[in-house]
Amino acid sequence: MRETDINTSHPYKVLIERGILGSCGQLIRKYCKAAEKAETAVIITDDNVAALYGGRAAASLEEEGFRTLVYTVPNGEASKNISVYGEILEYMAREHVTRSDMIVDLGGGMTGDMAGFAAATFLRGIPFVQIPTTLLAQVDSSVGGKTGIDLKAGKNLAGAFCQPELVICDPDTLDTLSDRVFAEGCAEVVKYGVLGDEKLFSHLEQTVKDFDREYTISRCIEMKRDIVTVDEFDTGLRQLLNLGHTLGHAAELLSDFSLYHGEAVSIGMTVVSRAAARAGICSEECAARTEALLKRFGLPTECSFSPKELFEVMRSDKKRKGSSISLVIPKSIGECEIRKMSLSEMQIFMEAGLEELPEDNGDVGTAVRAEDIGTGDLGAKA
Amino acid sequence: MRETDINTSHPYKVLIERGILGSCGQLIRKYCKAAEKAETAVIITDDNVAALYGGRAAASLEEEGFRTLVYTVPNGEASKNISVYGEILEYMAREHVTRSDMIVDLGGGMTGDMAGFAAATFLRGIPFVQIPTTLLAQVDSSVGGKTGIDLKAGKNLAGAFCQPELVICDPDTLDTLSDRVFAEGCAEVVKYGVLGDEKLFSHLEQTVKDFDREYTISRCIEMKRDIVTVDEFDTGLRQLLNLGHTLGHAAELLSDFSLYHGEAVSIGMTVVSRAAARAGICSEECAARTEALLKRFGLPTECSFSPKELFEVMRSDKKRKGSSISLVIPKSIGECEIRKMSLSEMQIFMEAGLEELPEDNGDVGTAVRAEDIGTGDLGAKA
Repeated sequence: MRETDINTSHPYKVLIERGILGSCGQLIRKYCKAAEKAETAVIITDDNVAALYGGRAAASLEEEGFRTLVYTVPNGEASKNISVYGEILEYMAREHVTRSDMIVDLGGGMTGDMAGFAAATFLRGIPFVQIPTTLLAQVDSSVGGKTGIDLKAGKNLAGAFCQPELVICDPDTLDTLSDRVFAEGCAEVVKYGVLGDEKLFSHLEQTVKDFDREYTISRCIEMKRDIVTVDEFDTGLRQLLNLGHTLGHAAELLSDFSLYHGEAVSIGMTVVSRAAARAGICSEECAARTEALLKRFGLPTECSFSPKELFEVMRSDKKRKGSSISLVIPKSIGECEIRKMSLSEMQIFMEAGLEELPEDNGDVGTAVRAEDIGTGDLGAKA
Repeated sequence: MRETDINTSHPYKVLIERGILGSCGQLIRKYCKAAEKAETAVIITDDNVAALYGGRAAASLEEEGFRTLVYTVPNGEASKNISVYGEILEYMAREHVTRSDMIVDLGGGMTGDMAGFAAATFLRGIPFVQIPTTLLAQVDSSVGGKTGIDLKAGKNLAGAFCQPELVICDPDTLDTLSDRVFAEGCAEVVKYGVLGDEKLFSHLEQTVKDFDREYTISRCIEMKRDIVTVDEFDTGLRQLLNLGHTLGHAAELLSDFSLYHGEAVSIGMTVVSRAAARAGICSEECAARTEALLKRFGLPTECSFSPKELFEVMRSDKKRKGSSISLVIPKSIGECEIRKMSLSEMQIFMEAGLEELPEDNGDVGTAVRAEDIGTGDLGAKA
């Protein structure tokens, strides 16, 4: 079993091994100090995951003596709203769940974010354990302590920083993902390659969907750990993790969640890479490799929304401080930087990326040049 | 101006002086590091308070250059729900409020709790300033960092620990309180006297509603500070502050908020004092003085709910851990202790307090005795 220690303000472990879902109760007893006093474990999951893995997880928890409750929400991002969040809290109150009890999230990023936020706020905070069952959740959202729900005005606009007690990753659960859900996880994996690990990126180019799961998942988690332990509360370096997310979030919202998160990030990464190439910040080859790899995973790289629609939504992006915005921009495969720029600079920069790259790599036409945009004053590197 | 430093994980000041509401903008500029970057201040208030003080607060903030927005909710505890909370978040998102902007709570405990929870969770946390305008909020809820909203299942069942950047108390705002709202604040003031300051209790007995406001408010805040800095996250000593609240919360909920919080606490304090006297934990005189003082403030000391109804609601009280409950019990005026007991012990103990004290103080009849209940194992004293 691979164990990774995440040394945030509240330290915890990520355990990775095929098949460990069936012994989650035992692992929680072994690794979770908070579980010592817990009488009740509330599994929060979605209907898809409940049917596949709910029984196995519940059986393991019951075997360890927990009163085990299962709360199931409809699958899909649309469930991650304030009304479902409120229903979860009311359910736990009716079931007399106390501060020393525990939430166990079982599912993808949607249930993970919402179960984490429920745990952060029910009775002003109760312990929780993450059992991510999608690739997206395993490599990304289960680590770092960001929890939250969507508002009508945008994704993840309400939430809390709250670290889990333990994360249990069973790569076998990826076998039951649809191609589309597996692929959206691959978009985040590609993101980690572009951000900070050319070797991982090359491994993905060689293997595409047959990548080594345990190696890949733990490399992504290690990179995320290295960033979030430096910047737990998202005040600087952690913005690197938003590569592709500024435009991605906007596209996801405009699609009314018919675009999956990873698909939206794939579009966002393609656009920002192209824009970076046009501005001379990265090579045309870097942008072309990124776009080509995303396409090989079956991921979208274009969207049907107009620049006007996209920029209107980006204005309310929570990453924006005051009248400026911080964009993560690739410099090469394995190296990105954060540039702070005005909204109008961002718009000019990104518009260039919304057009496809020309076949002839030499001519960047009238696109904005690197020296004209942003200050890059954070100077952060992955 | 009286300044009290609250040295919780995020330290802040409480400023107390008659008339300082009109210079709140200036004080925020002077004392709030977080305000340096803030472009927008969102005042969250209720319709009563907005009419009385909204203009003065907004003018002072605008004078200091803040873009000032005012969000008004209907007065009354019934507003402190998840739907109003959600509307506040959506409003701020639509207004493009960012992480470096700021919430200013202006009002009583209801808006304070909810504005604090909105600040704790909007974009995973933005700075906030408390300007409590009721006695209850000034002496109690504005200090300590407990924020939250009510669920259908009970009061304050969702929330977060989140310290404000600054608290501004203007005792002049108490002049416009109705007698009933002023009196409910007095219940919490009496609570502080019973908890830890016989001198304050005697001052109240001598002056009743004409107590020295600045002295009284700062004594209460100092006592609360001394408790919350030792136990910021409510794991032990802080339970002292719940004197009268276990039964009080239940009565408040059963009344569907027609009982005010302080009125409910007055009933709860009376019941627990009587129960303590019957069990021989405090003297009959201690219970009688408490009840008499509360009555002189015009506060209720009885409620119309049956023991059965009250205990059913108490079972879901968030202070309860597992199958036991921690009760705060007076030993004398100025000294209380926390006793951990089973739910059935609590029920037997409290039932004795639901009956009025006999005129003849000598006979405690068949009531439970001190040595039979709870373990008092926290051994905590105010």
